[in-house]
Amino acid sequence: MISNSFTETFGVAHPLVCGGMTGLGTAELIAPVANAGALGFLTALTQPTPEALAAEIARTKELTDKPFGVNLTIMPTRNPVPYDEYRAAIVESGVKVVETAGSSPAPHLPDFKQAGIKVIHKATSVRHALSAEAKGVDAISIDGFECAGHPGEDDVPGLVLIPAAVAALSIPVIASGGFATGAGLAAGLALGACAVNMGTRFMATTEAPIHDNVKQQVVANGERDTVLVFREFRNTARVARNEVAEKIREISARPDATFADVADLASGERGRTRVLAGGDLDGGMWWAGQSQGLVHDIAPVADVVDAIIAEATELLGKRLPALVG
Amino acid sequence: MISNSFTETFGVAHPLVCGGMTGLGTAELIAPVANAGALGFLTALTQPTPEALAAEIARTKELTDKPFGVNLTIMPTRNPVPYDEYRAAIVESGVKVVETAGSSPAPHLPDFKQAGIKVIHKATSVRHALSAEAKGVDAISIDGFECAGHPGEDDVPGLVLIPAAVAALSIPVIASGGFATGAGLAAGLALGACAVNMGTRFMATTEAPIHDNVKQQVVANGERDTVLVFREFRNTARVARNEVAEKIREISARPDATFADVADLASGERGRTRVLAGGDLDGGMWWAGQSQGLVHDIAPVADVVDAIIAEATELLGKRLPALVG
Repeated sequence: MISNSFTETFGVAHPLVCGGMTGLGTAELIAPVANAGALGFLTALTQPTPEALAAEIARTKELTDKPFGVNLTIMPTRNPVPYDEYRAAIVESGVKVVETAGSSPAPHLPDFKQAGIKVIHKATSVRHALSAEAKGVDAISIDGFECAGHPGEDDVPGLVLIPAAVAALSIPVIASGGFATGAGLAAGLALGACAVNMGTRFMATTEAPIHDNVKQQVVANGERDTVLVFREFRNTARVARNEVAEKIREISARPDATFADVADLASGERGRTRVLAGGDLDGGMWWAGQSQGLVHDIAPVADVVDAIIAEATELLGKRLPALVG
Repeated sequence: MISNSFTETFGVAHPLVCGGMTGLGTAELIAPVANAGALGFLTALTQPTPEALAAEIARTKELTDKPFGVNLTIMPTRNPVPYDEYRAAIVESGVKVVETAGSSPAPHLPDFKQAGIKVIHKATSVRHALSAEAKGVDAISIDGFECAGHPGEDDVPGLVLIPAAVAALSIPVIASGGFATGAGLAAGLALGACAVNMGTRFMATTEAPIHDNVKQQVVANGERDTVLVFREFRNTARVARNEVAEKIREISARPDATFADVADLASGERGRTRVLAGGDLDGGMWWAGQSQGLVHDIAPVADVVDAIIAEATELLGKRLPALVG
């Protein structure tokens, strides 16, 4: 057991977060994460409507009596998203912690604050974290270059970004990107984070609502089996290395390429569904972090969390203090 | 005080390394590093001849009775380097630890082994580390994407690369790249490394044999103030962001650019001398790691080492174990 301000503030057993993963953040995964004592996040936009999100939150509550949160990712999209209604669904559900990501969380903060909801904002740089702090968020989840999804354009990994953020901010920092083990949790805490976020690690769990082929590929992949796409459009994303990703990189590298040239390959609800639900690993582009090089098994969420906490507890409580004479 | 297999094997007080930095690894810096209880490395090729290296080793021995090592960086160069004679100078000097970097250390291992010299090889990937282990080196210094100089082409940072290397190798791993603080040392040990290497941190010391302008710039620079050059030629290097580096990037990005197009800007003993010795910060390309974002002062080596060890000791011995209930 590891207790600190994070576990006290959020009422969870462990300083461990399963942050929002679009397509994966459903009751199937987040209820067992909560039951295992970590802080998991449903993803609002995985649900097609605010009503469906309300139902998903209710479904999660039937599966756990432990705290969990909802991720609200604010992105420009081709079809307008009714963010205000999603926000209202969260507020009315009684959930007490929200993870925001993407654009500024400012429009949503007054409602969340009034409802007593704590807001953790995801940021990929110290300056964006400082901006979110000034807007009034309660904590920052700082995402290093290693992370799956959008690492930003600065390419600063966690070993440097985490302590830089901790030094610059007054609010707590959750370390994200590159973490999949108890040793990583111990390292994140040593760097000054109050908790560590893991995404890719939770993809390779029995309960993750994705095809077994994907889980097995996360296990099979090494730390070199991701690539960055969309760098040319200043919207860099880290995805699993596959045929689609290589094709996107090839097209993007052409002179005068624009995002429109790769939009069909890149977006694709259909493509993502083919991978995540259908198990067609080259069927579309899919997120993966470099930490997949540290993931060596598919196991139930409870076993994954227990092993992470046991390793970190042994390190923090015994093996590391034993080095000090 | 932090004691482990590294401090026992190498006979130093701290699991802290000041690895080879061309142009900086002279007696002025390495003797105080040794006196402070860390393991520092003279750089063989900073000396113009093997005889000069022998003299530099002798000069260092006059300034410290503590262990120190010599870095031998094996690179293809325009002018042939008498590596065998540099190696002989090291062996004859009685130095007992060598850091190799660049190409394969294999040709040099028999002589070093016969002389009872331990060899630490720098590698930027798990597969290159495994190859060096198979050749018979005694330890690996694994260099993450954050590092100054050559991070390789895989772009895997230390949070992932260090535990991946520790898991794959049987020999000890020294963590390098992105480290500049006691919190970083604690994190590196948590990730399974036996010691942590710092380079950029030791640039900002009173004794570092470089112009004060450079030291002040390391302090002023943030974690975003480095750039990668030579990516196009598969010989990526991380350097301080300055006019020369931006010019090299611009030329390199042109279609059909070759290294020859930037060689004069890039190499330049003269350029490096203008920066490091002359303090002309745009006078040439100069190495810097992202950890410069964590360096906030210029101080004597002894104070820097003492502060790092004090912070790490406090973390490992008190603050981290206090989290475990």
